[in-house]
This record gives sequence, C-alpha cells and structure tokens, in this order.
Amino acid sequence: MSTRKSPRTARRQRQAPPAPAYIKRVMPYYDAVDEETLEALEDHVDWLIQEVGLEFRENPAALERWKAAGADVNGTRVRAPRGMIRALCKTAPSEFTQVARNPARSVVIGGDNQVFVPVYGPPFVRDLEKGRRYGAIEDFNNLVKLVSQLPSLHHSGLVVCEPCDVPVSHRHLDMVYAHMRYGDKPHLGAITEKSRAEDSVAMARILHGDNVVDQHCVIMGNVNTNSPLMVDKVVTESIEVYCGNSQGIVVAPFILGGAMGPVTTAGSLAQAFAEAMMCCAYSQLVKPGAPFVLGNFLSSMSLKSGAPTFGMPEPVLSNLIIGQLSRRLGVPLRCGGSLTASKIADAQAAAESADSMFSTMLGGANFVLHAAGWLEGGLCTGFEKLIIDADRLGSYQKILHQGLDVSPNALAKQAYDDVEPAGHFLGSAHTMGNYETAYYEAQMSDSESFESWEESGAKDTATRAFERWQQMLRDYEAPAIDPAVDEALLDYIARRKQALPEAWY
Amino acid sequence: MSTRKSPRTARRQRQAPPAPAYIKRVMPYYDAVDEETLEALEDHVDWLIQEVGLEFRENPAALERWKAAGADVNGTRVRAPRGMIRALCKTAPSEFTQVARNPARSVVIGGDNQVFVPVYGPPFVRDLEKGRRYGAIEDFNNLVKLVSQLPSLHHSGLVVCEPCDVPVSHRHLDMVYAHMRYGDKPHLGAITEKSRAEDSVAMARILHGDNVVDQHCVIMGNVNTNSPLMVDKVVTESIEVYCGNSQGIVVAPFILGGAMGPVTTAGSLAQAFAEAMMCCAYSQLVKPGAPFVLGNFLSSMSLKSGAPTFGMPEPVLSNLIIGQLSRRLGVPLRCGGSLTASKIADAQAAAESADSMFSTMLGGANFVLHAAGWLEGGLCTGFEKLIIDADRLGSYQKILHQGLDVSPNALAKQAYDDVEPAGHFLGSAHTMGNYETAYYEAQMSDSESFESWEESGAKDTATRAFERWQQMLRDYEAPAIDPAVDEALLDYIARRKQALPEAWY
Repeated sequence: MSTRKSPRTARRQRQAPPAPAYIKRVMPYYDAVDEETLEALEDHVDWLIQEVGLEFRENPAALERWKAAGADVNGTRVRAPRGMIRALCKTAPSEFTQVARNPARSVVIGGDNQVFVPVYGPPFVRDLEKGRRYGAIEDFNNLVKLVSQLPSLHHSGLVVCEPCDVPVSHRHLDMVYAHMRYGDKPHLGAITEKSRAEDSVAMARILHGDNVVDQHCVIMGNVNTNSPLMVDKVVTESIEVYCGNSQGIVVAPFILGGAMGPVTTAGSLAQAFAEAMMCCAYSQLVKPGAPFVLGNFLSSMSLKSGAPTFGMPEPVLSNLIIGQLSRRLGVPLRCGGSLTASKIADAQAAAESADSMFSTMLGGANFVLHAAGWLEGGLCTGFEKLIIDADRLGSYQKILHQGLDVSPNALAKQAYDDVEPAGHFLGSAHTMGNYETAYYEAQMSDSESFESWEESGAKDTATRAFERWQQMLRDYEAPAIDPAVDEALLDYIARRKQALPEAWY
Repeated sequence: MSTRKSPRTARRQRQAPPAPAYIKRVMPYYDAVDEETLEALEDHVDWLIQEVGLEFRENPAALERWKAAGADVNGTRVRAPRGMIRALCKTAPSEFTQVARNPARSVVIGGDNQVFVPVYGPPFVRDLEKGRRYGAIEDFNNLVKLVSQLPSLHHSGLVVCEPCDVPVSHRHLDMVYAHMRYGDKPHLGAITEKSRAEDSVAMARILHGDNVVDQHCVIMGNVNTNSPLMVDKVVTESIEVYCGNSQGIVVAPFILGGAMGPVTTAGSLAQAFAEAMMCCAYSQLVKPGAPFVLGNFLSSMSLKSGAPTFGMPEPVLSNLIIGQLSRRLGVPLRCGGSLTASKIADAQAAAESADSMFSTMLGGANFVLHAAGWLEGGLCTGFEKLIIDADRLGSYQKILHQGLDVSPNALAKQAYDDVEPAGHFLGSAHTMGNYETAYYEAQMSDSESFESWEESGAKDTATRAFERWQQMLRDYEAPAIDPAVDEALLDYIARRKQALPEAWY
C-alpha cells in the first residue's frame, strides 16, 4: 500500500484547525428590553433585598459575616439597604481563567467569552440500546470520555449523570477522578457536603500542585439556592470552601415559576437575580476577588398538570434579559442550555433545546451548564441527545466566533470574472478556493437526497447519534497523565473511601 | 345532562382570546452587523448592479421599460448607475394590507409586522400512515384545511404541495379555489404562466368584487429569480400581471451558495439583494406604488456531497443581516422559515427548523413563507412537520407580540405578602390570578413525567402530531361562503378547464 496521503485525507487535515478552547464572541448581544425596563427590574431586585430579604439558614457564621458587613440581620433573615449588595459585588472579577490540566484547554469565564458545559445532575441515563435506567459509574465514565472528544463542549462539568451504583458518600471521589483522568478539560468539584467540596479541592491540589491552585482558579462548585429566597449551608459552605481556597463558585437559583417564584416572568427573573446577587456578595465577604458566576434557571409550567416546561417563550425571553442584567452588574453569568421536557431525543427535544440554546447564545451567558445531553427536565442524560446537542453547539460556536466576513474575498467581486449572469459557480476559482471552509458541516445532519438516505437505512437522527457515540467510545484514548500524580490521586481516594462509611442516601 | 358549563370549560373559554391575524411585534430587532459592514454590503450590491448587471430574458417589453427608465441596456443585460435602483424602490410601500375574504384575517405586510405562511412548492407529501408519495389534490385540500385551523399561520400560501394528480394546465385553478373555499385567510395566486397569473387575479375579482380588487391588495404572486443574476419572463410577467392589477408580488432569489451564488455568505447575500432590488425597481416601473415583497433564500452546502443544507450557521446569520438591509431600503422582506434537509420530522428537522426560524423571528422578516411543513430541502410537505412547526410558531408569536411585562402585577410585589422566603407560590393569590395566561401551552410538547408519558404509549412528537392532524380534519368545518360567489368561481374554473387542454408537464 502507498503511504502517500490521498487528496481527500490531505484536504481533511488542512481544513481542521484545532478546536478553540472556548468562544470569544465577535457577535453583538441582543438587547431584548430597553433601559427603562432594566431599571424597573433592578429597582424591584433592590426592593426584594431591602424589604423582603433572604433567609440564610444552618450557618450561624454566615449570619455573623453579614452582621459584620453591616447588613440588617433579624434571626436568619438578611436584608440589605439599596446599593450595599451591588457595591459588594464589585470585587467579583468580571472575567477570570479556569485553568485546565491541559493548558490549551483552559477557559476564560466572563466578559465576551462563552463556555459550553454538559448536562449536570440527572439520576437516570438513556440510550437507544439499553433504554432508560439509573445512571452507573460505567455510564458516568463513558459520558466523560465522550465529552472529552466533543470539540464544542469546552468544559467537562461534573455530574454528567449520577453514578447510582457507587455509595453516595464515595461518589464525589469517583466523579472528580473521572474528570481528572479521562479528560483534560476544566471541570467542577462536589458541593453536596462541606467535606466533599474539601475533597474536591484537595484532589485539585494533587493534580495541579499547591502553587497553581493558590494562584489560579482550577476547580469550581456549582450549587442551587433554595428558592424562594432561601440559602442553606450547602450554598454558604460551598462558597466558603471554594472561594476560601481562591477557587470559583457558581450559584444558580432554580425557579419553577408559580412554585419557587412568582408565576409572572418579570417577578421570577427579578427574584432569581436578587438571590444570586446576595450569594455573589456573600462570596466577596468570604474572599474579596473570588471568582463568582451568577446563575439563573427559570422554568415555565404546564397549565394541564403543573409540570415544568422548557424551551417555552417565557424562559427563552428571560435568557436574553438576564444577560443584560448581569452585564450591567459586571459579573459572569451561568444561564440557559439545551433544555427540554421530552423523554427522548425527538422533535420536541430538539425544538425546545434549540430555542433555549439560541437565546442563550444571543443573551451571552458565559458558562452554559446543560448545553448538551439534557432530557426529561433534567432527570435523564441522553447519550444520543448529548451527541445531537453538541453538533448544534458547533453551529452556534461558528456564528459567535466568526460573525460575517466582508473581506474582498468574502464579497467575491473576482468570482464574477469567471461566472457570467445565468452561469454557475460550481467549479469556479472562487468556489474552489473557499468551499472547504465556507460552511459548517453538521455531523448529525443527513442532508443527502431521500433516495440516498433510504438506501443507507432511513435512519433518524437518534439512530445516527447512537452509532456515532459507540464509535467514539471505540476510538477513545485517555489523555496522558503523570503516573505519580495518578497514583497520588488514587491513593487519596482509597484513603478517603476507607475513612468514609458507605452510605446510600 | 346538565347544560351548566364545567369550571374547566369556563376557564378554557375565558383564556382563549381570538388568535391575532398577524404579528405586530413589540420586540426590538437584532442587529447582527454594524453600520460599516452594512455599508460594505450595500456598496457591493451597487457595484453588482452597475458593473455586472442582470440578464432580463424572454421579455423584450421589459427591456424597453428599462431603457425608457434610463438604465444601461445592452442586449438582454441591464445595468443601472449607482443610486438609480434604490431611487426606484422608494415608491414601493414599506407596508401594505393584504385583504382576506374574512376581514378579521387581513394581514399587514411590512413595517414591524410579521406574517407566517406555510411551506410552498413540494411535489411530495409524507405522513406517518401513508409514508412518502407524490402530492395529490386530496392531500392539497387537507393541508389547506389544516392551515385554516392553525392559529399561528396567518396566511394560507399557495402550493402547500403539488397536486400531481391534476393536469399541470388545470392545477392552478384547483389550488386557488381550495384556498378561497376551504379557508378564509389571505393566500397567493399562480405564477408559472402569464395566463395562470391572470386566472388567479380573475378568480380574486369574482371572490372579492372589482371594487375591492381595484383598491386593495387581495392576492399576490410568489416567484423566484434564476440566480445568478438572471430574470426570465416568469418573473417579469408575474410582476406585470399582479402589479398591473394593483396586486402584490414577492420575488425571491433562491441561492445555493457555491452554485447559484458565491460560496461565501457575504457574496451570496449581496447578490441576492441585488437581484431582488432590481425586481423591486421593475415592479415600480410597471406600477409605481405596487406592493412588493423583497425575498431572500440562501442555502449552504454539504462538503461531502454538495447537497443543500439548512438551519446551518451561515444562512441563519444571513436571515439576521438581510433584515437589516431590507429595513434600510424600506421594503417588506420575505425570508426564513422552518427549513431542514431532514426527510422526517425528527431531531434534525426540529433543530434546523428552530435555528432557521429563531433567526427569522429576530431578523424581522415580514412574510415568512415555509414557516411550517417543510421537509427534505423543500421537496416534501410533512403533515406531522406542519403541526409541530405551527406549535413552535405560537411560541415565537408570543415573544414577538408581548415581550416582557414589567407592570406591578408582573413584578409581583404583592406576591410576597402571601409567600415568605422558603415558602411556596403554588396556590397563592398572585399565582391563582395569573397562571392561566402566564405561560404558553405548547400543544405538541409532552411535559409530563416519564411514567405518565410511558403510560400514555411512550409516543414521540411525530406520533402525537399525527393524531392531532387526523382529529383536526375530523373537526374541520369550512368557513361560510356566499353560494352565488362559490357558483361563479366553479363556473369560471369549469370554463377555463374546458378551454385549456390537459397537459401533464
């Protein structure tokens, strides 16, 4: 056999620049509402903080911190006069770098940058072969391996599914290890208990070294408030552990409108912003300058059943507006994702996810958790959904990264030297010189003729995605790691598992 | 049985205001590119018109019109000095009303208004029961009946599929009649031959009366240029018939980048705009003030096969920019739609359609042909796809129509009188007073739990859509029509069919 590259191979290699580690957007934001509306929302946020306040429970030290800062603390209720919380938020960096163990994969969170992160939290997984089932550590590791190979996912997240066959008390160790070992993108740490957050930071110290951890954000926690307007120790202790170690924290109110917040969009939006702003201020009381990501998660509700709905006009609109509010505050935003209530990777799933994600893209969310793989309102991770979503993320990435080129080559005056009116551009010099990079080639879209599609089995998108992730797992190679570091991680995990009794809830 | 309405029925009736006839948007446009980029595009458009020009073929009278207007006519090539075409476009109305036979269904095309129109042109149809097949008049009539019942489709279009079992020479008569008889929304007329355009206008005169037709736009043609830069008599004669009768015309370049236009997005975009602007100017030479809709249709291409691709970043971006260009010109825009290359109503179809349609929404296209039902790059009308798309259009409609409410009720200060932090809004006075209208209820989304969904048959979106359209056809009632008018229409059709020999191509 000849060792000479085929023209096809050579072309493929020429056209594949390294995938960007994250998105530096050149596109403008979409300002969905005007200044007056933003001021009305901000005024209402300030009213909520001053007049209603937030409950800070289970953490007396947090209340002491608030008192020392001059807040109005009454029992566990914390209120703050207008202006105080916004002033505290000012020390939070408007952008910061999360360092990955592969430096080429480090991401900048905040500013005009966007980072896509996989689904977080589902207890169930689903694929076309095995159907729906509780997630297991094998599924978890496979999902991490897939995420590591998907160029439009810039970050590995953490709970890509719950590995339900591992004791709850040991789970965080196996999860953090999988992200450290099977991928080299940045990832999150555990938050469910203070000691688990501490384990996560300790493992990051082994992986990166104390020097790096003391000077850079290498790991972050991601935690939800207890809406409405309640913050428990899971939140405050996570902030204390991560920010106390100069690491980052993402705090997101999770609000189903009409349940954990007002049923009206403006009301829920403002409440969510008030909750997140108070948590940002708390992070800065713990450590001024600590990286903080202000989260937002609003869901609408089915009139028929009260079930949460996703990709609907109200949360889609809110994705845009929260972007405006967070840019005014100057704090990085977590928002949006490829959200759906569908149980399978069908048309509903794709439509709801697309509208949710398109608004996320234009709204400018900096840290997009749930950008791929989410099904069933977050109860289930779909293997096929992960692949399909990631393919669409590549399209959003191209828009945000490149915008419209109006260079002389792009305007193509010279093309009309070759092609007369009523002629054809196929084969013209301009087409030949540009077509390899002109268009995004979606991997999961079948754009062939009906006849070709039928000949190759009349497969739907989910079937094609199933075949793709199976192949990706066969092709997977773990990124190299210093064996001494790997051994130290495994040793830490073994010692901790020894010390922590097996607990299943 | 009691005749008393159940609370459920009463509630349903209270919450269902009449569907709006079209969208009057309150949302701002998204300006994807800046002034400098727009000027570069416009400069290039003007260069194309002045230096390259368009071929106007098969219609010597059109060339005479151009000469008389002062254009540079050389054989069939028409060029125009910078500024001339833009000046001619100024008499085209920036918005106009298309009157429907049901006056409550008349639509305003242009300005800040948006009109959603079904798919146009596919020779094939597909549904879950009968699979893919050539369209027949029964399919055609059923599609018109479905469109008449879908509140998010504001216009009935024309070729919802090709009725391939009717001779080509008679087809336009049956198609126009179906739209006049089975629905009461505005619709289009035929363009494929001059006499068919004339038949369409003649039928509109019977339906609406000469008085109305002479004073209002009641029917429009929709026609494509022969890109690159060629206009044949199908276009010019359609303009002459419709505009000559004070009716409207939509002219859309259909460009597959790299084939009918440059492979670069800016180049294709500018070429399309040049072609459409020349046709707008021609319509104003035929009749100053005639309603004109400037069309745009750009497709990208698969690197693998050269097949057209849809919903990809390049045409998605162009949907936004053409909106900016057409607003600057002050002429209504046709653009976008729920486009896909998928053969079935699966995740690919939904994702590509959603991205195509979301950008259409924010780009502000005034007349959105192909907003529902399109499959296979326009070769096939999907019955299920029509239903699924229309359901998503309802979501876009809500965003565009309502924007964000920041009234005191929406901000919901009073909700916190009832609900303390850590409490629950379900059942609170504010929730009860607002929940019926708070959220869009997508008919095709199943947002119930996995268990409920499985109990009701684990149906995918397409299966639910199939059941829905079957039920809609069972429930269908034709809108009333004056029997004398109906008889006159049928009489006209019979006479014309008598006069026109059956032809099958």
